[in-house]
Amino acid sequence: MNLLNETLKKIKPIDRVVNEQARKRINNLVKPKGSLGMLEDISIQISSITGKLIPDVTKKSIIVLSGDHGVCEEGVAAGLPIVTVVQSYNIVKGVTGVAALAKQAGAEVVVVDIGINNEMDYDKIINRKIRMGTGNIAKGPAMTREEAVKSLEVGIEIAEKEIKRGVKLLGTGEMGIGNTTPSTAILSVLGGYEPEEVTGVGANLPDDKLANKIKVIKKAIEINKPNKDDPIDVLAKVGGLEIGGMAGVMLAGAANKVPVIVDGYISTVAALIATSIEPNTKEYLICSHASKEKGASCASEILGFKPFLHLDMRLGEGSGAAIAMNVVEAAVYMNREMITFEESGINAV
Amino acid sequence: MNLLNETLKKIKPIDRVVNEQARKRINNLVKPKGSLGMLEDISIQISSITGKLIPDVTKKSIIVLSGDHGVCEEGVAAGLPIVTVVQSYNIVKGVTGVAALAKQAGAEVVVVDIGINNEMDYDKIINRKIRMGTGNIAKGPAMTREEAVKSLEVGIEIAEKEIKRGVKLLGTGEMGIGNTTPSTAILSVLGGYEPEEVTGVGANLPDDKLANKIKVIKKAIEINKPNKDDPIDVLAKVGGLEIGGMAGVMLAGAANKVPVIVDGYISTVAALIATSIEPNTKEYLICSHASKEKGASCASEILGFKPFLHLDMRLGEGSGAAIAMNVVEAAVYMNREMITFEESGINAV
Repeated sequence: MNLLNETLKKIKPIDRVVNEQARKRINNLVKPKGSLGMLEDISIQISSITGKLIPDVTKKSIIVLSGDHGVCEEGVAAGLPIVTVVQSYNIVKGVTGVAALAKQAGAEVVVVDIGINNEMDYDKIINRKIRMGTGNIAKGPAMTREEAVKSLEVGIEIAEKEIKRGVKLLGTGEMGIGNTTPSTAILSVLGGYEPEEVTGVGANLPDDKLANKIKVIKKAIEINKPNKDDPIDVLAKVGGLEIGGMAGVMLAGAANKVPVIVDGYISTVAALIATSIEPNTKEYLICSHASKEKGASCASEILGFKPFLHLDMRLGEGSGAAIAMNVVEAAVYMNREMITFEESGINAV
Repeated sequence: MNLLNETLKKIKPIDRVVNEQARKRINNLVKPKGSLGMLEDISIQISSITGKLIPDVTKKSIIVLSGDHGVCEEGVAAGLPIVTVVQSYNIVKGVTGVAALAKQAGAEVVVVDIGINNEMDYDKIINRKIRMGTGNIAKGPAMTREEAVKSLEVGIEIAEKEIKRGVKLLGTGEMGIGNTTPSTAILSVLGGYEPEEVTGVGANLPDDKLANKIKVIKKAIEINKPNKDDPIDVLAKVGGLEIGGMAGVMLAGAANKVPVIVDGYISTVAALIATSIEPNTKEYLICSHASKEKGASCASEILGFKPFLHLDMRLGEGSGAAIAMNVVEAAVYMNREMITFEESGINAV
């Protein structure tokens, strides 16, 4: 609890003075005012986060939190839980979606076992296992409140380790068969939705099993009675260890003035948790892709996110965050490499 | 005319056999089927274009065609024509939007004077000037039919030069103050729109001058009577030299089995010309960003393009194509680095 509290105390609003300076600079770059759209906004945001007019984001890292979900025994996922194990190994081997895309983006990938329901080999995977997967939320809480706090603190600790070794841009990712179910439960509670409004098929759940998934989510909320005004309670009762871990990464980014790219659906739900715990966190987050998962657009809307990659992706792992790192880097290049109107000898339009 | 005709003869449909093989491979990669969305489509498209199951796009080039527009004397642009000159130099100096973004994407930028209305220094800019800017389309044709053919051939020649030196992925860009006016005239004619439906403010034309821009476009169509069934006639009567050049780059890509990334509004209109001349060209084109310019979505719709970058950009120069190169490269990495389900020991979902 100490690490969480200390981290929350460190989170401040972004730098308004640098924000003004950055906006002025971007408006003076040699292009019609506003013509690079969100690239300009991202550049100004990164300046305001880092406090640097011309920041650098060369060293990039995607933190992938892996955890299992007791609720899988209710038939809510098409994949078997063993896939969480196999894919966690495959990510560090460099042969999954996020691994391939991170390689293209020049980002490292860090995989953390925060709650895989299996004995693991910790040669390349970081061991921060809190428990062997969550409890079945259709029958009781996912975890205790202490475990939920611990999941946030694992995310904070790993992110700060990355920041200490020089990482300037973080991305969140996850691996956890079944995790669209707790994510949708969280979104329903924090966003005030009926589960049928926001429940999707996740990783190719057959359509005829969707009604059961909705029923399970309703039951989880009914049985556990999460308190929507207490995000840690929501995380503990109907959440997931990797969701808490990702929220922790976001809090650490905000506390340490490092921008964090939020991936798709599960990550955006983690952002709901993080920003509910500390609203100032939001200004440190950069959204990425518009996930095709049903609840994703609702989760983005609550946060005021306008995802800029429309690739119909729904893989998770941090795959969208990896691609978005290119765009964030492009914004930084725009800011650094372009000259101003004064330097160009043209009058501004 | 010989180069154009020879090029058109070389354009064939993409490789259906490799297309099937590529789709099968992508479906077998270790991820829920379809979960990488358009990234999968782009990867399959590039395999089908190149005929290679695992293609390479490391060497990339953006060809920027620069030309001026006589119609500027009608007050349709906020920028002065001298900006075409200054920015063409600034691009090769590496200090404009496309230059900065190409640097991030690891792409080279080639600038071609295809019709700048000024004497130029050809130290770093390639001289293929056809004429000193187009004629004022509100008073007569933009250029002769021979000049329109020549503009296509300049694009073909420059693209083939790039391809010969090993470039595997091309992008189109332009610099030409006033060029949303001929672009909108072309879109109106080929797409069957009334100019008021598709005319936007371009590079920050004040709103109160929009009515005049629409009137000028209507007049250009009325006076020149372009034949909508003859795209070269449309290009000659109400087009632009750089628009023809970009269409030529696309034709050359198709003829030489090299994918071409289409930038925003002006480039998409050039794609309308290229695909109207030779419909098979379409399968060789990859769209990039959803330009904020008013007519852009209409132009994309005609071509069946689904731009995947939603960054509210409207700079031109090839800036969107540069960012999109990262995404295309990401698709290639996905295809090359990921293992299949068989290799992973997991059953497909």
